[in-house]
Amino acid sequence: MFKQVLIGVVCGSAILTIGILIGHFGITKSGDSAPSWVEDVSKDVDENLIQEFLSQVDNVNIQENLRELTKVPHMATTPGDEQTVQFMLKRWQDPETGLDRAWREEYKVYLSFPDPNKPNKVTVVDPSGSVLHTAREKEKPYYAEQEDAAVVQPFAAYSPPGNPKGKLVYANQGKLSDYERLNQTVDLRGTIAITRYGGVGRADKAINAEPYGIIGVLVYTDPLDINDGLLSDTNETYPHSWYLPPSGVERGSFKTQFGDMLTPYLAAKEETYRIPETDIKGLPPIPIQPIGFEDAYILISELDGAAAPNDWQGGFNCTYNYGAPGFKPTSRFKDSNVSLDIFNSAKTLNSSNVMGVIRGSVEPDRYVIYGNHRDSWVHGAIDPSSGTSVMLEITRVLGRLVKQGKWRPRRSIIFGSWGAEEFGLIGSTEYTEEYFTKLSERAVAYINVDIAVFANATLRASGMPSMQNVIFKAAKQVSAPGQGSTNVYENWKRYFNRTSPTHGLIPRLGYLTGAGSDYAAFIHYLGIASMDMSYTYDRSKTNARIYPAYHTAYDTFDYASKFIDPGFVSHQAVARTAGNILLRLADSLVLPLNCSDYAESLEKYLKTAVDLYQEPLQAKKISMEPLKRAVASFRKASESLDELIRSSDLANETPLKVRKINDQLMLVDRAFLNPLAFKDKYGFRHTIWASSNAGTSTFPGLADAFADAESSGLSSDWDHVHYHLSVVSQAIEGAASMLTDVI
Amino acid sequence: MFKQVLIGVVCGSAILTIGILIGHFGITKSGDSAPSWVEDVSKDVDENLIQEFLSQVDNVNIQENLRELTKVPHMATTPGDEQTVQFMLKRWQDPETGLDRAWREEYKVYLSFPDPNKPNKVTVVDPSGSVLHTAREKEKPYYAEQEDAAVVQPFAAYSPPGNPKGKLVYANQGKLSDYERLNQTVDLRGTIAITRYGGVGRADKAINAEPYGIIGVLVYTDPLDINDGLLSDTNETYPHSWYLPPSGVERGSFKTQFGDMLTPYLAAKEETYRIPETDIKGLPPIPIQPIGFEDAYILISELDGAAAPNDWQGGFNCTYNYGAPGFKPTSRFKDSNVSLDIFNSAKTLNSSNVMGVIRGSVEPDRYVIYGNHRDSWVHGAIDPSSGTSVMLEITRVLGRLVKQGKWRPRRSIIFGSWGAEEFGLIGSTEYTEEYFTKLSERAVAYINVDIAVFANATLRASGMPSMQNVIFKAAKQVSAPGQGSTNVYENWKRYFNRTSPTHGLIPRLGYLTGAGSDYAAFIHYLGIASMDMSYTYDRSKTNARIYPAYHTAYDTFDYASKFIDPGFVSHQAVARTAGNILLRLADSLVLPLNCSDYAESLEKYLKTAVDLYQEPLQAKKISMEPLKRAVASFRKASESLDELIRSSDLANETPLKVRKINDQLMLVDRAFLNPLAFKDKYGFRHTIWASSNAGTSTFPGLADAFADAESSGLSSDWDHVHYHLSVVSQAIEGAASMLTDVI
Repeated sequence: MFKQVLIGVVCGSAILTIGILIGHFGITKSGDSAPSWVEDVSKDVDENLIQEFLSQVDNVNIQENLRELTKVPHMATTPGDEQTVQFMLKRWQDPETGLDRAWREEYKVYLSFPDPNKPNKVTVVDPSGSVLHTAREKEKPYYAEQEDAAVVQPFAAYSPPGNPKGKLVYANQGKLSDYERLNQTVDLRGTIAITRYGGVGRADKAINAEPYGIIGVLVYTDPLDINDGLLSDTNETYPHSWYLPPSGVERGSFKTQFGDMLTPYLAAKEETYRIPETDIKGLPPIPIQPIGFEDAYILISELDGAAAPNDWQGGFNCTYNYGAPGFKPTSRFKDSNVSLDIFNSAKTLNSSNVMGVIRGSVEPDRYVIYGNHRDSWVHGAIDPSSGTSVMLEITRVLGRLVKQGKWRPRRSIIFGSWGAEEFGLIGSTEYTEEYFTKLSERAVAYINVDIAVFANATLRASGMPSMQNVIFKAAKQVSAPGQGSTNVYENWKRYFNRTSPTHGLIPRLGYLTGAGSDYAAFIHYLGIASMDMSYTYDRSKTNARIYPAYHTAYDTFDYASKFIDPGFVSHQAVARTAGNILLRLADSLVLPLNCSDYAESLEKYLKTAVDLYQEPLQAKKISMEPLKRAVASFRKASESLDELIRSSDLANETPLKVRKINDQLMLVDRAFLNPLAFKDKYGFRHTIWASSNAGTSTFPGLADAFADAESSGLSSDWDHVHYHLSVVSQAIEGAASMLTDVI
Repeated sequence: MFKQVLIGVVCGSAILTIGILIGHFGITKSGDSAPSWVEDVSKDVDENLIQEFLSQVDNVNIQENLRELTKVPHMATTPGDEQTVQFMLKRWQDPETGLDRAWREEYKVYLSFPDPNKPNKVTVVDPSGSVLHTAREKEKPYYAEQEDAAVVQPFAAYSPPGNPKGKLVYANQGKLSDYERLNQTVDLRGTIAITRYGGVGRADKAINAEPYGIIGVLVYTDPLDINDGLLSDTNETYPHSWYLPPSGVERGSFKTQFGDMLTPYLAAKEETYRIPETDIKGLPPIPIQPIGFEDAYILISELDGAAAPNDWQGGFNCTYNYGAPGFKPTSRFKDSNVSLDIFNSAKTLNSSNVMGVIRGSVEPDRYVIYGNHRDSWVHGAIDPSSGTSVMLEITRVLGRLVKQGKWRPRRSIIFGSWGAEEFGLIGSTEYTEEYFTKLSERAVAYINVDIAVFANATLRASGMPSMQNVIFKAAKQVSAPGQGSTNVYENWKRYFNRTSPTHGLIPRLGYLTGAGSDYAAFIHYLGIASMDMSYTYDRSKTNARIYPAYHTAYDTFDYASKFIDPGFVSHQAVARTAGNILLRLADSLVLPLNCSDYAESLEKYLKTAVDLYQEPLQAKKISMEPLKRAVASFRKASESLDELIRSSDLANETPLKVRKINDQLMLVDRAFLNPLAFKDKYGFRHTIWASSNAGTSTFPGLADAFADAESSGLSSDWDHVHYHLSVVSQAIEGAASMLTDVI
């Protein structure tokens, strides 16, 4: 009996266990089983995937991308440009490593070109009309690249055509103060000014000159500013080093606004309304032409007058004279004029963006955007193809993961290969104008990597302070090329750093206050958190204002691979860092944007503003208290939000709670926008990061208005200071209100 | 053995079953049990709750709300206004029927008042200086209400002070064309014009007059326009009927822009920058004063000249003469002048909004906003207290459900009791300026119920076409007062209807193109889907341009309860309909906004535009194809979205998919905004619904630009037509792009 009972109990237990197992695992609960999407919506970024991405980013692939992209010159809208369009499409539509979808978007935009049949000329002409000297029309060839027929003659895009002829004067950098000073020593009417690159924007050198009666401007790159003083191409400059050969000329866009000039605030489609060309603002009013320092030396060394001030002297082995127009009486150019014959003309042509997307799995209606322009002035190995090569390697790795079914981002990723950036950020700007609302409502962030590698010393990055944390996190996971076990973050901190009240000694993230690349429309016009990064110089080793072959016919694959980044390891480090940031923005459950870091920057701006303006404003009965209160509100709101994120178990709460927080983080920069605050600055709407002329690192509208009021003393200008104080205070209060508990 | 086996099998089966049951129900699955929030996030609107709401809305409560709200005059910023602030706060903070939270928000705004110690005067003065007639200073009292010391003297808010004196002329409605015509018959310099209300905005009567040298303006309500011709207070007008007594005077705001005039596009906080008063635009340049038709008759009946045109004649038993300034030679006023002594002055005072919220359970960061102003000119029983009484009844019913724990909306509901609307929609506008980004990003819709009941015949509603469906649905569930079993929808269709290509015969939903009430800043400035509704007249029974006691001292509880809505059943119908719409917007899983109905309106606008403009534009080489393509894109996108909603099982999909669709629906009106398109129209940014002067029911920027170009013939004006065509085409394409699949 005992045995039978024992058997019964054992069998019974076994059957019960089987039953329990069947009941638990074998039968789906009808009412409360978790829907399949519950796990998906709470998934966070996968650190293993990040590691896989980092390991797959390949330097040789980047090198080969660059080789392909730089085969021919690809200035915007030329056949070479079309070749790169096709190349991008092919890569992004590749069935094994491509994106979900890729396509082209065209805009018909206002460009400016020299006449291939009538090249621009710069000559020295004596009183009898004999030409004593003619500046080089094209750069000196060292390799086949420079001899490519598609190399465009150096020119100043948007310079008007014309044939000014007059006595030459040296005008330093063509700043307003330079012409003012020069004007005190000599009557400038009817003269031609020769200026160095630097100090002010390209177009400003002509815009500033015109009121003094100057009729034409030359611009060149001084060896002091670019070559650490080196001059000779027999052994010093490219092809012997990265330095600029004497005949190298920086091309560029000579205009002060970004985007297509004929269709302000509208996408430049075929039938879009275009303003009359005569209504365009911010173009050079007089002809201007860039030349090489070889020719500049010939002109400057013969100039009459007294020695110009010390800070006007450059790198030539001669005294830079000023004060008398024209050449020395002892010169072979004595009594001669300098003549500019400029045949540029404007053309309205179709320029293409190439777009590619990876569709997000959980939040397809949230976009992380990554972009760079595709067009160059000549072969553009560094500018912009280093960035494009990096972008192509990132898309190859991610595309393969998608095509293999191994990964799909939480949010959608949009890649943009912008057209006509060199003519003034045109492709990216038209894109933001066409998709204004869609991007305003959905874009989480924009990552810009234009020139990926200026030099191979260190990372440099600029962006919203809210992005600091994710940039640091990514940089810590990437090893610094050539630095042993040091990572990109630690290496960066060695070169650029600051002491944060919160974080102590950290790398210095720059501010995106200008319009130097395609991030401009994203941050300034749309208020989308943006960043820009590259590898760059060791400033203790060079004073070059930019890499010396910039915008010249020497910016080639040969140059890049020999002198900028042999082995392409800095490219690789940038691809890894930028891709890591991209992945974190796309995949993190909670967006990796930190508003307390934003508060720190606002507090820094506030301190500067109070130090500089509070006393004089009190005298005008204008109170800075609203601004102080606003910054304090923002600080408080951002810390509450941080605390909410820290204290919540967001992976196990409704996905709408995460979305609410993410929307707060995403939209904080939108709150800083004011479409009416900067009426004279095209496309600038961001009240914190708009460009400023005042040269003070604080709220730009306030700084500019204060500078104006202080200089004019007009009560209407002091009113304008008060206006900007209200604008920025209310913008910051609005942002704080976005971050505060929602109702 | 068999028995043993049988027992074994039975026991085994029983144990197995028990095991299965334990396993299935007794043990929580670790990995895949549904989190508690899964059910909440997919909940749709509860029809039982709607029925409960409808049954609880009580007409007597509304009546008592009105009685309380109209105890004293409550013009903005007066002690009576403060009394209503306290009343709203008390009701919304009631522990049993109040909201989650209620508070006050103050703005310091620019207002205009007469001087209580020096009343404005209108007199007839003979050449010797004797006063032959003085217009009434205050309306004739019939009850105690009219004798309340807080009844403000009739005045034209924002009229400048001044003492113009001159010959009187009759100028019809003070339209531009009226003055033009009058100017052909008489030299208007130095005259005083008397005008009827109607035809143009109040301020325009003075703005249009000034260029002709007119120095002062009177305005009155003609019995023809308001009283169906009735005149006598012995038996015809109030207190015998709803008609305006002879001494009744419509007060009003005489300015053309909305919002605080000193702080354009900024919230009017204590320390906000204020523009100089001299920079204010859109105010009367010369003194203007409203009078009763009793006094107007005395003046007009004595006027010299010939009979004015037929359409200038009004309801008086006399000929309205024009053509000679001043009075008839046979009149006792012969050779006399009319003198205006206006002592209005501007004051910058604190005005309050009272805000209340019910926090949303699932999507607290989505707002459905319901509002009405609180301030009146005098007791304001109909304008605005009928609307406020309705709002208070809605908040009582919803507040109680919340406090009882029976209900909490999916989305947050914000109630706004706006201040200083009568002075130009000031409280609501400042609110939108202060919370610009927050509201732009989160507001689903705005419901405005200002005057809830003009008369008791039928519902009338205006709003975004996307809201048509939810308004219809709600109106069908409410029975029409006094119409047996007919519902509000069917009754409405009898009075106002149209034939829709999609829906056949339906009630006609109006467009919100003006700035007549507090919806203006929500739709025009912020692009938030908005609607406005009320019960109104049977137009076959009266021609009154508005309910006759409008803005007079007769708009009292007595008037409203006797002559506008005895029994308050129309108020009840409005409360039920508006509350039903509110509940559906707040609780529906998928927002009840329909973009195909929007497409229908765009197609109607397009047809009108093509009919009127295509030929003349072709002659100017301006193509309308981009506009046609844009409307077609919008139609296609809206139908795809409809189809997606129809074909998806959204209750069982990730809540982020519903959110994505809801964001598309919510944000479509934002895409129509352009902050630069209407530079001369303050606060108007919506390219579809902005106000228009052209009088054509089509895209407003296009219509106005076309009218200007046609009249001037200037090529720059034709350019402007092309500009507006591009603006509206790209706005519609942008909206279509928002509705299209997101990536």
